[in-house]
Amino acid sequence: MIESSAPSAIRGVVEQFVREELSQENAQIAGAVWAMLDAGGKGLRPRITLLSALACDPDASEDPLLASYMELIHVATLIHDDVVDNSALRRGRDSTNSVHGNRFSVLAGDYLFAWVFKKITQGYDNPVPTILATMLSEICNGEVKQLRATGNLGLSRAAYYDIIGKKTAELFAACAEIGAIVALQRRAGTSGPTLRQLPAVRALREYGYEFGLAFQMRDDVLDVIASEAALGKPAGSDLRERKVTLPLILALEQRDAALRSAAQHLFASSESEAGAASAPFATVLEGLRASAAVERSKAVIASHADKAQAALRELAPCQAVAELAALTRTLSEFSY
Amino acid sequence: MIESSAPSAIRGVVEQFVREELSQENAQIAGAVWAMLDAGGKGLRPRITLLSALACDPDASEDPLLASYMELIHVATLIHDDVVDNSALRRGRDSTNSVHGNRFSVLAGDYLFAWVFKKITQGYDNPVPTILATMLSEICNGEVKQLRATGNLGLSRAAYYDIIGKKTAELFAACAEIGAIVALQRRAGTSGPTLRQLPAVRALREYGYEFGLAFQMRDDVLDVIASEAALGKPAGSDLRERKVTLPLILALEQRDAALRSAAQHLFASSESEAGAASAPFATVLEGLRASAAVERSKAVIASHADKAQAALRELAPCQAVAELAALTRTLSEFSY
Repeated sequence: MIESSAPSAIRGVVEQFVREELSQENAQIAGAVWAMLDAGGKGLRPRITLLSALACDPDASEDPLLASYMELIHVATLIHDDVVDNSALRRGRDSTNSVHGNRFSVLAGDYLFAWVFKKITQGYDNPVPTILATMLSEICNGEVKQLRATGNLGLSRAAYYDIIGKKTAELFAACAEIGAIVALQRRAGTSGPTLRQLPAVRALREYGYEFGLAFQMRDDVLDVIASEAALGKPAGSDLRERKVTLPLILALEQRDAALRSAAQHLFASSESEAGAASAPFATVLEGLRASAAVERSKAVIASHADKAQAALRELAPCQAVAELAALTRTLSEFSY
Repeated sequence: MIESSAPSAIRGVVEQFVREELSQENAQIAGAVWAMLDAGGKGLRPRITLLSALACDPDASEDPLLASYMELIHVATLIHDDVVDNSALRRGRDSTNSVHGNRFSVLAGDYLFAWVFKKITQGYDNPVPTILATMLSEICNGEVKQLRATGNLGLSRAAYYDIIGKKTAELFAACAEIGAIVALQRRAGTSGPTLRQLPAVRALREYGYEFGLAFQMRDDVLDVIASEAALGKPAGSDLRERKVTLPLILALEQRDAALRSAAQHLFASSESEAGAASAPFATVLEGLRASAAVERSKAVIASHADKAQAALRELAPCQAVAELAALTRTLSEFSY
């Protein structure tokens, strides 16, 4: 049972699902989703969904469809994100919008959202559909806030937490919570919103949320320190898009006047000027890499990974809980 | 009770709803939605939702929230449509994408979809959420098909029906069906997918679907015959976007070689060349206006309006049914 929660098995389920189910309804959209899945991705969200179900009921029969739906929701948000960010690359390949155009990408994302919602409302009792819809509205809320915060060097750490909590952590929290609730619903034959109050469900939701915060912060740090080859997109993309992320916030808190001035210069320039070759871009990126902000960011990430792990203490020890704990340790790996 | 199903009252409810509820969650998105509602629109979808509820239960307490959600789903699809169509104008004003940009518009539409789904899953039992999600996936399906059919002068009447059925009629059908189901759920205290099989529910769904087909065809005819002032956007927008609609299909069926040749020329030219001032554009638009296709289109519209009205015979006569019947007669009005 645990075997099939390994990333490759989950990816297999998701891919089979897209091939067999989605493509009958709309071949072109299925092709775009397939290309996105084929390009990789770690399958963390379906894995957390499945492991959370097993953590609540080690005898739970697995529900690969539910896990697949969570991955497809994620893919839909990525397709729209690439339109919103004007991204040309995703996972080392051309993004959906650069292959098919913004028009198709908007529709493909909408179609996936609606299709997953149809499946969820048909197959799962409340509060599952509500959790999913609430999570999606929080993601959009976070994305709008992020768009409004573009180029704002005065962005506070609290505002940054609010943005990444909504745009990233809510989805991980929903995966853990929904996995837990569906397992409990099936074991006890009950449903309804009170399931959300059970200690195991709350603990797994907290696990997912803290995991998601650390995951996004790690992504933000990697954007500063990793190579283009490792990232699958140009390094420093956040700076180029004038996104203010944790390393920059922490560096600016250090009253580094030269860095602040370079960042102001960079963010004041137009998007075309702010390319990888520009002097202010290189100054800020090198400044960040040389600053203590990277190490301080890693410490913040470790603290959230610890909180995620601590939340698991509410659950009876089992193989699935051990695997969830092991996942949090990967958040502090920056070797690639 | 009937009074508040008048368009102005419904608009008032929708507007109050946006002001009081939506703006607390995200002021910028609320502003964009508000601007869209403020610019007009006939409020047909919420009106059909309310009237369908009253047709099933004349004593039903009205549910202006449900009707408002249907209008907001419609607004969300319009916001994304304008991105997909690159439209600069909507309802005589600048479209959301031209004011706020494509990036914000994608997010605003997503946010509205998710927010309405949250409210629907919280407040309404199945099959209501499933009907909504299915309808939305059909709309996207229809939009993708329409995008693929761009510039295809060989588009069959059957393919055109398939596209407009999905992109337009499904929403009207869902408004009627959901209005009916919610009224019956509240009267009988039952829920579940079997409600969809009740004769009154099936009849109202058919009413909505036929109404929607006729409504879209009328829109397509008005795009050919009406003035920019009446449309709130340039006349001939469909031709400019290389959309093949009923009047063009019927005109081409008449083997008008000159019109076909001009249309081929127009659709082969790039989008910038196909502006209102271009010679092929004027030739095709004038050719359509002068052809018998406009009158033949009106006859097809009347046949679907008749089918919508005929579906109402399944229902016990009452004021709401009479109003639904009266609405179908407006589909054959082309005076403005």
